[in-house]
Amino acid sequence: MPRWEGDARRRLQQAALELFADRGYDRVTVAEIAVAAGLTERTFYRHYADKREVLFRGPDEFEENFLRGAAEETGDDAMTLVVAALERGAGFFSPERRPWSRARQAVVDATPALQERELLKLSALASTLTGALTERGVDAVTAALAAESGVTVFRTAFAVWIGAGEERSFPEVQQGVLAQLHGLLARG
Amino acid sequence: MPRWEGDARRRLQQAALELFADRGYDRVTVAEIAVAAGLTERTFYRHYADKREVLFRGPDEFEENFLRGAAEETGDDAMTLVVAALERGAGFFSPERRPWSRARQAVVDATPALQERELLKLSALASTLTGALTERGVDAVTAALAAESGVTVFRTAFAVWIGAGEERSFPEVQQGVLAQLHGLLARG
Repeated sequence: MPRWEGDARRRLQQAALELFADRGYDRVTVAEIAVAAGLTERTFYRHYADKREVLFRGPDEFEENFLRGAAEETGDDAMTLVVAALERGAGFFSPERRPWSRARQAVVDATPALQERELLKLSALASTLTGALTERGVDAVTAALAAESGVTVFRTAFAVWIGAGEERSFPEVQQGVLAQLHGLLARG
Repeated sequence: MPRWEGDARRRLQQAALELFADRGYDRVTVAEIAVAAGLTERTFYRHYADKREVLFRGPDEFEENFLRGAAEETGDDAMTLVVAALERGAGFFSPERRPWSRARQAVVDATPALQERELLKLSALASTLTGALTERGVDAVTAALAAESGVTVFRTAFAVWIGAGEERSFPEVQQGVLAQLHGLLARG
């Protein structure tokens, strides 16, 4: 994507987040987001299908890091592949991104339509990871369990990472949550 | 709920499932479902808020079994509580119910709106279970991991249980899936 295209997306996202936080998602129109970003409504629709999409990167872009992590792992053990995916996926959540992620999550938490969209995103990630694992020869049930567990670790780590006062990096938080899941299921 | 009310719900569900399977969810109206069930549209709306709801029991009813299982468990270990919830939840999926569950799932799999609804149902179950665990003194992160893992086991077991040729009972399948998850996370 050329740089100015990325700039347009960033400006639209920033404007949308501020408007949603200010007035509530339901009371903001696409036209208002475009104006606040100094762009046209037509430009908005070149980048996003509708208002609900503006706070979400394309699904491909979101899943890409995770998939690349699994693809670059040479082992074929299910959890080894999932951990490689998680480590690569964590790279996106840099310290500079944390304030944005916190503000974004506050809006998502206040907006049922965005919560649904978030669920769909994570469910799609689990399906995609399951597919990547079965392609590597992992049986279907193990693949589903490993991929869903990976998504559970990611979403839990994300919630911890954006918590008030949390200062550890995303990879560090995620590693801790993964260890906690191992501990939880090692007994029993 | 009086018996005739339960009958009306069952007739509406049966009629809806047959129509959806026959013609596709999008091409069926609430009026047609009511007629096929020998009831009025008004009766339909006394039982369900809209067409999307007819294949879903009320969320309270679905979650109730799981919650009761956790409530009756005297231990306070997170996974012990989750396993108790799963065992009680499994009771609903009797052998007589399997053909219905298979037919229902085929319609859900073919219908994005119903897939979204199913995701919401399972996500609500995870939240409710997380809440039940924290009320029992489990810390927030452990509660989330245990509850999400429980839902992963349930949904994976359900997919196996409705598989072609599967003859084991739901509790048996679920126990096997749980053991597989333990095995997967014991290593590492």
